[in-house]
Amino acid sequence: MDRDAVEAAAERLRGQIRRTPTLRCEALDRRAGAELWLKAENLQHVGAFKARGALYTLGRLSEAERGRGVITYSSGNHAQAVALAARRHGVEADIFMPEDAPAVKVAAVRALGARIHVAGTTSSHRRQAALDHHARTGAVIIEPFDHDDIIAGQGTATLELLDDVAVATGHDLDALLVPVGGGGLIAGACLACEGTDTKIYSVEPVGCDAMARSLAAGERVAVEPGPTLADGLKPTQVGVKNFAIAATHLAGSFTVDDDELGRALVALAVRAKVVVEPSGAAALAVALRGALPGRPKRVGVLLSGGNLAPTLLAELLTRYGPGEVEA
Amino acid sequence: MDRDAVEAAAERLRGQIRRTPTLRCEALDRRAGAELWLKAENLQHVGAFKARGALYTLGRLSEAERGRGVITYSSGNHAQAVALAARRHGVEADIFMPEDAPAVKVAAVRALGARIHVAGTTSSHRRQAALDHHARTGAVIIEPFDHDDIIAGQGTATLELLDDVAVATGHDLDALLVPVGGGGLIAGACLACEGTDTKIYSVEPVGCDAMARSLAAGERVAVEPGPTLADGLKPTQVGVKNFAIAATHLAGSFTVDDDELGRALVALAVRAKVVVEPSGAAALAVALRGALPGRPKRVGVLLSGGNLAPTLLAELLTRYGPGEVEA
Repeated sequence: MDRDAVEAAAERLRGQIRRTPTLRCEALDRRAGAELWLKAENLQHVGAFKARGALYTLGRLSEAERGRGVITYSSGNHAQAVALAARRHGVEADIFMPEDAPAVKVAAVRALGARIHVAGTTSSHRRQAALDHHARTGAVIIEPFDHDDIIAGQGTATLELLDDVAVATGHDLDALLVPVGGGGLIAGACLACEGTDTKIYSVEPVGCDAMARSLAAGERVAVEPGPTLADGLKPTQVGVKNFAIAATHLAGSFTVDDDELGRALVALAVRAKVVVEPSGAAALAVALRGALPGRPKRVGVLLSGGNLAPTLLAELLTRYGPGEVEA
Repeated sequence: MDRDAVEAAAERLRGQIRRTPTLRCEALDRRAGAELWLKAENLQHVGAFKARGALYTLGRLSEAERGRGVITYSSGNHAQAVALAARRHGVEADIFMPEDAPAVKVAAVRALGARIHVAGTTSSHRRQAALDHHARTGAVIIEPFDHDDIIAGQGTATLELLDDVAVATGHDLDALLVPVGGGGLIAGACLACEGTDTKIYSVEPVGCDAMARSLAAGERVAVEPGPTLADGLKPTQVGVKNFAIAATHLAGSFTVDDDELGRALVALAVRAKVVVEPSGAAALAVALRGALPGRPKRVGVLLSGGNLAPTLLAELLTRYGPGEVEA
């Protein structure tokens, strides 16, 4: 796979997804010591970049495959994305979600007309439940990240970001920060950046750094994901295809803790006026350290999604908001 | 004045302001029973549309005028906008703000390098203080709304909105909802909509409906602004120029109470993933009633600004968020 696959996906997705805006915010730029180009995928359909891969993948199924229905497993945003894509294509959808999925994500999947099945708390648990269902019914599994079409679809977010930056500045990004769960978004980003000098970095929660550990080991390593605010970034393992692409493209890896995630999320709400979920704030959290190697001038930041409980948002604003006003 | 004045302002402002995105949100569309086209001026420089008028007005001052410095009076967003414009043009700025201005707005004005003077609680109080300062110093008063250049500058937001809707749908807006304080944004909107069939409605907080009362009386009427969450929509009186334009262009007027403002603000955060201040949620609050005359299909909603205390945002999310998740 290469950049052509992402461009083909972008062509096919035209009119089906939103071309989300790339946001600027001088206050955040000052803290980061760089121009931040914030790709607002929280403003995408279903509130997350996941709509891209799901719509592309379902759109490429045959009539016969669609007739058998689709299955997926997800902590939330991919579930919503598949439910949306299934509804648009008139396909039945069965979705396996963890016991601790945020209520706001479960409610959204239900509102889109998909059947929800609760299955354990880890990605392994829910993947197994989905496989069992597939064995019984023959329905098509829509992988959350480890699939060519999913990767190509998610890559379109980065393609748009690069395009916006090129139009505005005449340059490519110097660096790009991407939150990593299973690796769909970053694998797509790697392909989209082919032919540029953009250095791509993965960002994972502390204790959930399956990508960083896999890169260090030179092979995929499974983790027992620790607790984190970033419910979308807790896979047991990154995907096979995702790791293969990342291993040949990434410039480095970062981890962020809950305190940094909360501060970055509140900074986005107060300064940039957008709502992201904790996973969606991960890339900005690293940018705000102002310590990327080589002091890049133009830094891309993927704001991956915006689905979180209003009560959690309120709690984080109460904790970190006053400091933000004085900053 | 007419649409040409707004187009001239748009030409002059190119590259100085952000072309903010027009957002869509299916969940809000369903509630409104219409396509909502949300013009996100909360994403503008200084977090509000006010940057447009201030940058345009200061940009047209003579060298001699700039040398004398500028003065303004404002509850917050116009203050920030003038401070920003003054800094960009290398001009001294003295800003008169009310005692009860939100701390987040005062801090932002200070950070932009302007001198702040505290003056009473109403727009009349702070206007008088500004006039006194002008009499002493000869510095140029940058009116918050009652000025041709301010009106033309603010109108550029609506011009962009109309353009986005036309590109996406091939049509004009059927209706446009505009929050009204002194009337700068709506007067500009009226001019920008000339030549279209768009019906324009003013939205004011209950007890602060100076425009609605003036339209009913056929002349400008002063009000004693009652308490409202919408700190940006509390003028004693709409402007002379603003009223003259509105009186010949508006299709009607609405008022909204704090409960509706809070619900609309939280709906925007949870559903559309953007942060607005209470004033910025006023137009959406009316749209969500789903009861506009003539059942318009395409409704423009001006999200005028996004500057509010994080603690207030937290409080509103706590109060209205749980209902929003179940909706």
